[in-house]
Parts: sequence; C-alpha cells; structure tokens
Amino acid sequence: MAIAELDRSAMERATARQARLTKPAGSLGRLEDLSIRLAGMTGQLDPPLRRAVVFTLAADHGVSAEGVSAYPREVTAQMVLNFLGGGAAINVLAREVGARVVVADMGVDADLPAHEGLRAVKVRRGTESITRGPAMSEAEATQAIDAGRQMVREEDPDVALTGDMGIGNTTVSAAVICALTGLEPAVVVGRGTGVDDDGLRRKQGAVAKALEVNEDAIRRGPLAALAAVGGLEIAGLVGVILQAAEMRRPVIIDGYISGAAALTATAMDPRARDYMIASHRSQELGHKAVLDRLELLPLLDLDLRLGEGTGAALALPLVRASVRLLNDMATFGEAGVSERA
Amino acid sequence: MAIAELDRSAMERATARQARLTKPAGSLGRLEDLSIRLAGMTGQLDPPLRRAVVFTLAADHGVSAEGVSAYPREVTAQMVLNFLGGGAAINVLAREVGARVVVADMGVDADLPAHEGLRAVKVRRGTESITRGPAMSEAEATQAIDAGRQMVREEDPDVALTGDMGIGNTTVSAAVICALTGLEPAVVVGRGTGVDDDGLRRKQGAVAKALEVNEDAIRRGPLAALAAVGGLEIAGLVGVILQAAEMRRPVIIDGYISGAAALTATAMDPRARDYMIASHRSQELGHKAVLDRLELLPLLDLDLRLGEGTGAALALPLVRASVRLLNDMATFGEAGVSERA
Repeated sequence: MAIAELDRSAMERATARQARLTKPAGSLGRLEDLSIRLAGMTGQLDPPLRRAVVFTLAADHGVSAEGVSAYPREVTAQMVLNFLGGGAAINVLAREVGARVVVADMGVDADLPAHEGLRAVKVRRGTESITRGPAMSEAEATQAIDAGRQMVREEDPDVALTGDMGIGNTTVSAAVICALTGLEPAVVVGRGTGVDDDGLRRKQGAVAKALEVNEDAIRRGPLAALAAVGGLEIAGLVGVILQAAEMRRPVIIDGYISGAAALTATAMDPRARDYMIASHRSQELGHKAVLDRLELLPLLDLDLRLGEGTGAALALPLVRASVRLLNDMATFGEAGVSERA
Repeated sequence: MAIAELDRSAMERATARQARLTKPAGSLGRLEDLSIRLAGMTGQLDPPLRRAVVFTLAADHGVSAEGVSAYPREVTAQMVLNFLGGGAAINVLAREVGARVVVADMGVDADLPAHEGLRAVKVRRGTESITRGPAMSEAEATQAIDAGRQMVREEDPDVALTGDMGIGNTTVSAAVICALTGLEPAVVVGRGTGVDDDGLRRKQGAVAKALEVNEDAIRRGPLAALAAVGGLEIAGLVGVILQAAEMRRPVIIDGYISGAAALTATAMDPRARDYMIASHRSQELGHKAVLDRLELLPLLDLDLRLGEGTGAALALPLVRASVRLLNDMATFGEAGVSERA
C-alpha cells in the first residue's frame, strides 16, 4: 500500500477555521500548525486521538560487548520485565497521559517468559556486531519491519507513539544516522546512557569501523543499510512508522533511536515524514541533525535522553490539545468578539 | 505571613530517590529538576496537584486609547463573556488538562453581568494612561493585590496557574518590566496581539513616556512602580503569586503579562521566585529577559503569545508527570535491574 499525500483540502479548512477563532491570528503558535498538519494527515479537523499506543520495541546488539555502553547487556531483558511490571518511566507516563504501552521482544538475547503484555516476535537473539559485518540479514530486517507493521494493524491506534529499549542502541542508531545522512561519527555519536570519555571514544571508533566494514551494503539503499548497521528494534519501528503512515495515523516520534528509524522510513518512502510529529529534542549529540534532515521541529526540549517512548508520551497532551483548540474554541462570530481594527 | 524557604530536606530525599529509579541518572532531564523543586516548595515528594486553578484576571488600561493595540478596547469585556461561556482557548485547555478557570473582573471598563463564574472584584473601570501619570493609586494597587490573595485563599488550589486578559496589557507589562529591570523599551516592547510597525513605534513611545513621567514613583519601589505603570490584572496576579507562595503551593507562570507580575512579586519578596514554574517562553520580545532575571527556564517554547493562562495550562501535564515519575517508577532494587557497570 502507498502512503497518501496530505489532504490539502482538510488543511485549508483547518487554516480557515484557525483564523476565525477568538484569539489573535497565530497566537497559538506551533499548536496551530500542528492542528493543521493533523488535519492533513487524517483528512479530519477533529481526528480521534484517544486510542494512543506506545510501541516500545526491545532488542539486543552485538556491539554492546565492545564497551560502548554504561550498562551491562542483561539490562535489556531486565527492563522488558520492568515494562511488563508497570514500573518503568514509560509505564508511568502512559498511565498519566492515557496511552497504552505495547512491549515487543524483537530480538532480546534472553528467554523471556510468556506474558499477556509482551509481543513475542523475536527475530533472533541479538544481532552480530556492526563492527565486523552486517548486524543481520536483509531478510531478518524485513521480518522485523513486518512484525512492526503487524502490531500497528492489530492495535489500530488513533495515534502511534514510538519507543525503544536496547543496551547498545544509541551506537547502532548513530551508525544508521551516519549511513543515511553522510554525517561524520564525531557529530553524531553521543554519550547514550552516560558513557565516560573512554567509552565515547570506543563508541565513535565502533561506528567508524561499522561504516567502513559495511560500506557496500550502505550504498545499496536503506534496507541494506538498516540490516548492516542497525538493530531489530529500529527495524521494527520502521515498520510501525510506515504502517501508521499508510493508515493515515499520526506517529509521534520519540528521541534518538526513534529518529534513526524515522530517517530510515523516510529514505524508504519520503511521504512517511508527513505523518511524523517530533516529540522532543534529545540531549543526545546528533539528534538535532536528525530532526533537521526530517525538517521536523520538536515540541519539547527538556534534556531528555531516556528513550522507551517517554518523550513521545510527554508530547501527547500537546497533540491532543492542539486538536481540541481547533475544534472547541468559539469563533469571533459565535462569541460576539470584535475582530482586529 | 512570610514566604518559607524551600524544604532542603525534602529536596535531598527527592534527589536521592531520583538516583535509585530505573533509568540512567539524569536521563529525565528537566523533569527530574522539576520534581525536586516541587518537593522543596511543598515539603512533600508526592504533593497533590489535582486541584489546579487558573486565575484569569481581566482589566482595562487607559493607554489602550493611544493606538498601542491591534484590537479595540471593548474586546476585554467581550472576552470575559467568552471565558464565562467556556469558548476561549483557556477554557478548552483547562478542560483538556483538568484545571478550573477562575475569571475575575479586576477593572474591566464595562458593567459585566453577575455570573456564578465571575469574581466581581472591580477596583475601578480601567486605569489612567501611564503616559500621563500613575495608572492608579498605591491604595488601588494594594486593593487589587489583596483581591488576588483572597481568591487563592478561597480556592485553596494545590497548584495555581496565572492568566490575564486586557487590551493594552502588553504595553503596561513592558513598562513594568523596564521599570523593574532597567532594560530599555527597545528590547522589551513587542508586537503584543499583532500591531504593525506604526503601532509598535507608538507602543515603544508610550512606554518610554510612561517611564519618564512616572520616574519618581518607579524609584520608590515595586508597589509604587506597579501602581504607576502597571495594571489591575497585573496587581491581582502579584497577589495570586505571593499568596500561593506563602501557602507553599507551586505557581505556574504563564507568559509576558504574568512575567511582569512575577518580577513584581519577586521585587516585593525575593523568595516568591522559589515557588514559580515558568511554563513557556512567549514569542513576545523581552519575555526571555524576564525569565533570565527570574532565573527560570521555561518548560515549553511553542511561539505562543495569547495569554489567558494558556501556556500555564499546557505546562500542567509536564508538572504532574514529573511528580508521578518520581513517585511511581520502580527502583533498581525493586525491579531487579542492574545498575551501571
């Protein structure tokens, strides 16, 4: 299925209505633009946004054995259990803003127990290290993308939110970002969950090495690049984004890892970008470059760098508010308020 | 009553708990700091925040006859009726985030009908023009401050939000900001609801003239300065802020007009600042300077310039989320998650 163009007629109607609401023109700033974009995505001035689903996809990474993370590899599986127990930041935020969290094992290197809250769609137990060759095969990447698509089809959310968990995944995300943008590791690789200076040097070295070792695959296009230097949760998120866009549902993009997925989805289909809402600017180095490439302005800038979908969940109330303002405010005529002289 | 110092012990307990939660230290960025500040204000790690009240105070301004606004003076009264009818932006947002709007006539130049939703505390029908002398007497300013205080006492909110309505009030707010900071009108006076270049020149001229004409009063201190170049809704908000701070309730400060009130309250009692949360950076020129003087970082930066309390209402979900994260997330110990290597 193809991704549809934005509905220009709905955007014009939303723009015209914004001008009639009882406020100085433009005084609601970015929220006015957002309500108009949402009309374009959904074809409706008052799209439903109640069923909000955070897709928090988890996977392990071969490169995590190379001293690129402040946390040990087993934390990925431990955090999946924390998600299932409702104790992680994304659980708390989802409850607070009224969203549902879907947790998926895309490729965790552990035998996770069956749980009603867990989508067991493991493609493989972690990836190979990107510093020694491709992280996975293109068939595996495609399988992960399809699993992400399938979750969106089944959940049928009004609005999709992206999230991630995976020790080592800021390293592979940096590699994906470098591969797709041509930017140098020095301006893209950051401290992730908090590596020290030595860890940062190892991380930059790993990304540089990955780009060199996988040079041919990267040149073949976004799917091959994703398989070569990406990860299974990133591939799953590519599927979530593409599927939501095809269904004309807005997708709230979380931070750095989700940004790598958003870049990949856009490289596969440039129209995917039209359905994205950038939730926040991450503290992670290089995230601003990702948002600039996507030509998206983030709604929040709160020095977050947690992932899981936390930034996306925090932006959800702003997204909903923009639609309520467009639809529920009185017009100058209805309220008997004088327009500007 | 005096404003209490922040509770350092509660802040230390909140800081210690943040370090034990299942996330990399500091990865929730500004929301961690916010939860710690809220603990300091309230003395509690889990302060109630359900009863959120937006104090949207309205008044008219003598200077509005001098071509400083894009909208006619009667819009103040018309918008008060819009607030009472539930059709203004602040009504829509308050419903969306779960807050109550208290509308007060502090000095609207119209006979407003009695309405259960309207606090009729009119001090006088609009002020004198600040370009020709003091806007009001110090007794009238004090009466408005006391009315603001009384509303907070009666509402007993868990968290107070400031809001305003008054054609001409970005002009008088600019004058207050210049008076209290010593900044020049050229860097403080903006386009308000959208005046053109001529209107902007008239506005800058009016503020410069007001500062000159009221020079002696401005030198006498913040109350005299407020009476000389301020307005009745600003004075009311000074009362709201001081009373909330005395009751150890957080106050979410809206934009430019609320910023002028926050500066005035801080000039009267420097500890008032400790109870303030800056909701957003307004598009209005000079607002950044206000926040810098208050040493407050805004939570949002969405090019808003509407007032009414809209920025404060949009920030409320972030404030509540910060407290839920601190209290409801699992610790490393509880969740069996490994800490950093």
